[in-house]
Amino acid sequence: MGTSLVDAASSGRGTWRPAPQQKFTIGAGPVSVHERVSLALARAPLDHEDPQFQELFRQTTDMLKRVFRTQQDTVIMQGEVVLGLEAAAAGLVEPDDKCLNLVSGVYGAGYGRHFAAYGGRVLEVGVPYNEAVDVEVVEEVLRTEGDVKVIAVVHSETPSGTVNPVRELAGLARRHGALLVVDAVSSLGASPFEFDDWGIDIAVAAPHKCLGGVPGSALMAVSERAWDKIRSRPDPPRRRYVSLLDWKEGWIGDGRFPFTLFVAQIVGLHEALTARLEEGLDNAIRRHDFVADMCRAGVRALGLQLWPAREEIAANCVTAFAVPGGLDADEIRLLMNRRYGVEISGGLGDLRGKLLRIGHMGHVAQPLYAVMALAALERALHDLGYPVRFGVGVGAALAAMDP
Amino acid sequence: MGTSLVDAASSGRGTWRPAPQQKFTIGAGPVSVHERVSLALARAPLDHEDPQFQELFRQTTDMLKRVFRTQQDTVIMQGEVVLGLEAAAAGLVEPDDKCLNLVSGVYGAGYGRHFAAYGGRVLEVGVPYNEAVDVEVVEEVLRTEGDVKVIAVVHSETPSGTVNPVRELAGLARRHGALLVVDAVSSLGASPFEFDDWGIDIAVAAPHKCLGGVPGSALMAVSERAWDKIRSRPDPPRRRYVSLLDWKEGWIGDGRFPFTLFVAQIVGLHEALTARLEEGLDNAIRRHDFVADMCRAGVRALGLQLWPAREEIAANCVTAFAVPGGLDADEIRLLMNRRYGVEISGGLGDLRGKLLRIGHMGHVAQPLYAVMALAALERALHDLGYPVRFGVGVGAALAAMDP
Amino acid sequence: MGTSLVDAASSGRGTWRPAPQQKFTIGAGPVSVHERVSLALARAPLDHEDPQFQELFRQTTDMLKRVFRTQQDTVIMQGEVVLGLEAAAAGLVEPDDKCLNLVSGVYGAGYGRHFAAYGGRVLEVGVPYNEAVDVEVVEEVLRTEGDVKVIAVVHSETPSGTVNPVRELAGLARRHGALLVVDAVSSLGASPFEFDDWGIDIAVAAPHKCLGGVPGSALMAVSERAWDKIRSRPDPPRRRYVSLLDWKEGWIGDGRFPFTLFVAQIVGLHEALTARLEEGLDNAIRRHDFVADMCRAGVRALGLQLWPAREEIAANCVTAFAVPGGLDADEIRLLMNRRYGVEISGGLGDLRGKLLRIGHMGHVAQPLYAVMALAALERALHDLGYPVRFGVGVGAALAAMDP
Amino acid sequence: MGTSLVDAASSGRGTWRPAPQQKFTIGAGPVSVHERVSLALARAPLDHEDPQFQELFRQTTDMLKRVFRTQQDTVIMQGEVVLGLEAAAAGLVEPDDKCLNLVSGVYGAGYGRHFAAYGGRVLEVGVPYNEAVDVEVVEEVLRTEGDVKVIAVVHSETPSGTVNPVRELAGLARRHGALLVVDAVSSLGASPFEFDDWGIDIAVAAPHKCLGGVPGSALMAVSERAWDKIRSRPDPPRRRYVSLLDWKEGWIGDGRFPFTLFVAQIVGLHEALTARLEEGLDNAIRRHDFVADMCRAGVRALGLQLWPAREEIAANCVTAFAVPGGLDADEIRLLMNRRYGVEISGGLGDLRGKLLRIGHMGHVAQPLYAVMALAALERALHDLGYPVRFGVGVGAALAAMDP
Repeated sequence: MGTSLVDAASSGRGTWRPAPQQKFTIGAGPVSVHERVSLALARAPLDHEDPQFQELFRQTTDMLKRVFRTQQDTVIMQGEVVLGLEAAAAGLVEPDDKCLNLVSGVYGAGYGRHFAAYGGRVLEVGVPYNEAVDVEVVEEVLRTEGDVKVIAVVHSETPSGTVNPVRELAGLARRHGALLVVDAVSSLGASPFEFDDWGIDIAVAAPHKCLGGVPGSALMAVSERAWDKIRSRPDPPRRRYVSLLDWKEGWIGDGRFPFTLFVAQIVGLHEALTARLEEGLDNAIRRHDFVADMCRAGVRALGLQLWPAREEIAANCVTAFAVPGGLDADEIRLLMNRRYGVEISGGLGDLRGKLLRIGHMGHVAQPLYAVMALAALERALHDLGYPVRFGVGVGAALAAMDP
Repeated sequence: MGTSLVDAASSGRGTWRPAPQQKFTIGAGPVSVHERVSLALARAPLDHEDPQFQELFRQTTDMLKRVFRTQQDTVIMQGEVVLGLEAAAAGLVEPDDKCLNLVSGVYGAGYGRHFAAYGGRVLEVGVPYNEAVDVEVVEEVLRTEGDVKVIAVVHSETPSGTVNPVRELAGLARRHGALLVVDAVSSLGASPFEFDDWGIDIAVAAPHKCLGGVPGSALMAVSERAWDKIRSRPDPPRRRYVSLLDWKEGWIGDGRFPFTLFVAQIVGLHEALTARLEEGLDNAIRRHDFVADMCRAGVRALGLQLWPAREEIAANCVTAFAVPGGLDADEIRLLMNRRYGVEISGGLGDLRGKLLRIGHMGHVAQPLYAVMALAALERALHDLGYPVRFGVGVGAALAAMDP
Repeated sequence: MGTSLVDAASSGRGTWRPAPQQKFTIGAGPVSVHERVSLALARAPLDHEDPQFQELFRQTTDMLKRVFRTQQDTVIMQGEVVLGLEAAAAGLVEPDDKCLNLVSGVYGAGYGRHFAAYGGRVLEVGVPYNEAVDVEVVEEVLRTEGDVKVIAVVHSETPSGTVNPVRELAGLARRHGALLVVDAVSSLGASPFEFDDWGIDIAVAAPHKCLGGVPGSALMAVSERAWDKIRSRPDPPRRRYVSLLDWKEGWIGDGRFPFTLFVAQIVGLHEALTARLEEGLDNAIRRHDFVADMCRAGVRALGLQLWPAREEIAANCVTAFAVPGGLDADEIRLLMNRRYGVEISGGLGDLRGKLLRIGHMGHVAQPLYAVMALAALERALHDLGYPVRFGVGVGAALAAMDP
Repeated sequence: MGTSLVDAASSGRGTWRPAPQQKFTIGAGPVSVHERVSLALARAPLDHEDPQFQELFRQTTDMLKRVFRTQQDTVIMQGEVVLGLEAAAAGLVEPDDKCLNLVSGVYGAGYGRHFAAYGGRVLEVGVPYNEAVDVEVVEEVLRTEGDVKVIAVVHSETPSGTVNPVRELAGLARRHGALLVVDAVSSLGASPFEFDDWGIDIAVAAPHKCLGGVPGSALMAVSERAWDKIRSRPDPPRRRYVSLLDWKEGWIGDGRFPFTLFVAQIVGLHEALTARLEEGLDNAIRRHDFVADMCRAGVRALGLQLWPAREEIAANCVTAFAVPGGLDADEIRLLMNRRYGVEISGGLGDLRGKLLRIGHMGHVAQPLYAVMALAALERALHDLGYPVRFGVGVGAALAAMDP
């Protein structure tokens, strides 16, 4: 594909195209947000000790409980979600604890390092990165091993666009006495999620994926069982950035933050959660399903191959598809961005260069965003020599809006 | 078309559709604006007497000169553009002046009332509302009548999506000693416009059409000839809201505003004009052309009839097309708005119910906005029973992006 | 006062002062607004025909009814308040109607031109510009003249900082069969105002004074009597920018706007009115009283002379005081602005150079804004050679916060 | 002090006071920011992989170099500044390294835990919390101990309002072959700071103190010596949230972020740094000095005791003063906040209840903010029974504006 990328606006007469005046961010997160969220960020910052801010923070953790579907604690760690994921291992894992890491993709594979970093003995059960974790295999491992203390699983493997059967895995964990850590980063807000009913111990989600917010915090639910484990340790992490206990003993227990909070981030999160609860959690889930259906239909109609092995395990927050033979993933993305004003995502880690991902997360889980992403994709594929009958992808997506 | 409109989100299982989370305003103005414009509106308001605001106002009128392509005066009247149009007549027309109104659409037809209200004797030259003013006919009238004092013409007839040959008409006006008032409301910023070179006397434009701003002011250029005429009158309008002279003697002459200014509006306009000059006037015109081409291609591919009689007179700021037989214009618009989140425009006055209009004005003159408008149109037409092969309109638009 | 004004930040070592990083606008309007209002302006503009905008507009006129305390019509004209004032005369005055203009200041004096412009025979009853209209004198005039058709009065004479007895004057108007036009531009929101109970016919207010909004519209209440008069005329203004009837027959009667609306302005007004009703009209009035008391105490403590002849007629929206002998009003204001970051207002028209005005309007009617204005005033007076014991003005204002 | 706190607005007639309509945050950070920063946060979020965002991030780290005065690396860790402080220890300290912690306040005292957490043997040199570290004592300790590997010192002890002689301490560190970690959280932007010239190894600053931004990141400069030490370790922290090396090998080395970035936070920081460089670093430092002088003068005039033992060691970012006998610190703050709309800070840790702190940081380092804080303080002290002659604090501050 010898097309060299030139700035769209500067090329010669015959091929002049207007430079995009606006960017639509329709990838795997962060994504475009509703103006009520972005304008909330612009409110005058309060001091984190201001009673008015503390009330807003309290409401935010309460709304999070409704979203996680829990009556136990929620914690908003101030950092990227990976901080929350690491904090879960830092809290739950004691040296030589047997830890089972379930791997169906790049993010799952990464969790092993958290277990290892805090002294765990790591077992791994894996499947190919376009598949979902097999519950029966896991059950067999748990039965055989006998004393697994902590299990980790990714609910929605954002890099692959697949989902894992968390509900069933939580049942297994309960039955075998293991604590379960769930990476719900891109599932919360888009997929059914029942922290208490399913019996999860620590779940970590992101504001900037399907909840419609902006990055900056790790949203966590923590079970009483998890707190018990942490507190029962002789020397759990305290006064460390990675410490969950600092939040339990500080804010939850004592009304004191461990350090200065990111007030604008919390104000934005408060607004995003308010909007979500106004819409209704169920409506939002249906909305993600609806747009995911559209997007997959559009991708398939273009002759592209969905990445997940089966449609049943395809995530509803992101549509991953294989890069067509002969094309370069980065070139496609760059063209879509520079020439057509749409940013989608590529592959991560081992999947780099192999797939592309269109997001339908949070605010962006709307039919018109899928239309824009598909239109830009059609154009970019065409520009790079892939045969496209213009409109066929968008058309299939539009058709999928009928039941 | 018996489809009754129900809120998309509330209908039964089978036809559930997500309620739009965002509105894209892609009509005949106001339209969606760039965030740099909308965020400019949020700046803390200054007093209109604050030297800092007065400097910003001065820069704004100077940028307007570059946009109108004039070295004569520009005036920003504080009101809707109709105020500026009325002010032109109020200033230029003396009782019993012979006034020639050129009518190729609803807006042109309306100008006669301004001439009449200020005592003019009104002549009218008209064409059907899908045609452009005929220069030869006008010349004939001017020759026959002999003493026409003021001529009025609409450059871009927004309600019909057509353009008139202003340059040629200005030449006629000059040769016959008449003053020329041009309604450039939706042409300025999208079409070539040369206030000084063509020899126009008063032009009126809008911030919220092709300049990328928000409504609230009438942007005017005024020639020295026009000022001479106004000042030569025994009793021109003074200390009236409609008075141009209040601005000439007040702000331009003396640095004093006639009343409190709409500071936020001016700040937004300043930002919109800055963005426009950064882009370059020529680039912006090409951008409007480009998207208009896409949009017309999409509309035609859907089997719809463009409203303008010939493509050469089609405006590049708005694409007007006839409502297909059997369908109801308001129903189409309401469906597009409520169900799909896109607001387009209908017909005005005599054209009400007969046509629909997709805008490509200012910020919205971008390929992805045309794509969204066409996609929503495809869906709404289909929902109302018009036969649509999904993707055919969007596809034709995408194809039109190639030279 | 030989002090030449230099930019604060650029002067030599000994007198270096930091350039203000922020401007506080504490004059006679527009003034600083609450962030909820300014951020509302930044919302994506809707089309004025969008049902969502039309609902918001409807709510805005309804909230205005609550603020004007009327069950009759409210109209939001799209222009500066002077448009509304002119529109009242344009609607109510027929050629040779006897019109009584009550003059206690610059704005009152100006109203005569509106009466005259529309053919009225103008009578005037005046008082010095630091006094209030005398009800008994007016009654005498009405009795003597017999057939006065329209009366005009300014409720709060912003240029002088005085108030007129509108309630009593309305009673007179009712008893003598005259229609009453009230300029409530800077009183509405700060002073008790009862459109229906007092029996006013047209009142005009501003969003950007005591209601906490931004400039751009004339907020009007119109009585049935006023509509009757307008409609009974053989040829009332129609399809003119100054026409009230266009709004009555268009929007109120028919749900159609006469032209494109200033959507951002209306959205900001909607937010300002919402905030006001949340606070409660009575609380807001008390708040204006409270800060006006503080401000007058501060000004007097500095040895300055209040402009109003008596404290009972001092407005609670602006504190006017005489420029101390030997000082230059513009120099004081420029120093306060450039060096200390506070914009206050000077005198208008005949009062130019004679007085200065600190506003306490809308959002700015808060103790800390009075403190800032007085502090900056103390500094500027001192810099120009007026003897100031620093803190004495602010101190008196702070002391006035105790009952 | 039996005054019970009631909501200002709800008390009885005699003592009615308006509830504050706006909050001014004038404490020890976060503080009120310039609107250009807050509105920058509202820009549509880009994906962190978007080339446009990556360019903006690059510019931000470059501007940071100018602010830290370094040509070595700057790193923006995504978390509160305490993350950066911990990361310095995590990177530099190997088990059994001798670490010298210099303690002149609560923050200094806290640093010992970071040294200990990563295996350091901690020595401590302390002074009372109203004093500055004694350079001669430190020199003596370094000479005696011989093999100190890492030294930590706080430049500006925000909780005490004092500063330490970092330049001299850096000289000592260089001469004794120790690496120096400086907590410059509240000094950067307000005090002279020369990372390269002084020879510091890791410095950590905050966006939301004197740089005029909002919380959410730890701004770091890292010397080549520091990188050498980290890389020379057998097993430095990698793929941990606390890892500096992840940033060096990821973003700096390879142009890949270790995780999703807080895009809005970076956009706000970019704007704050741009504003700072436009103002000039030296001007900003003078501005902080200027307002600190005003504030101290105001506090002393009220008969209050400055917390720092000597004026020479008083910080210019925050003015700390002792709570007057018989009064309760929290009660003063709550009154200032609820009744007067000003948030200042109290004491932390051991200093809780003993002192109060008015900030003059970043945007808030302006004369009018000092005036507001002092005015609210005067009122609150008076309300709680402390004898105040109103205006005396503000007056002294205003007087201090003259050289």
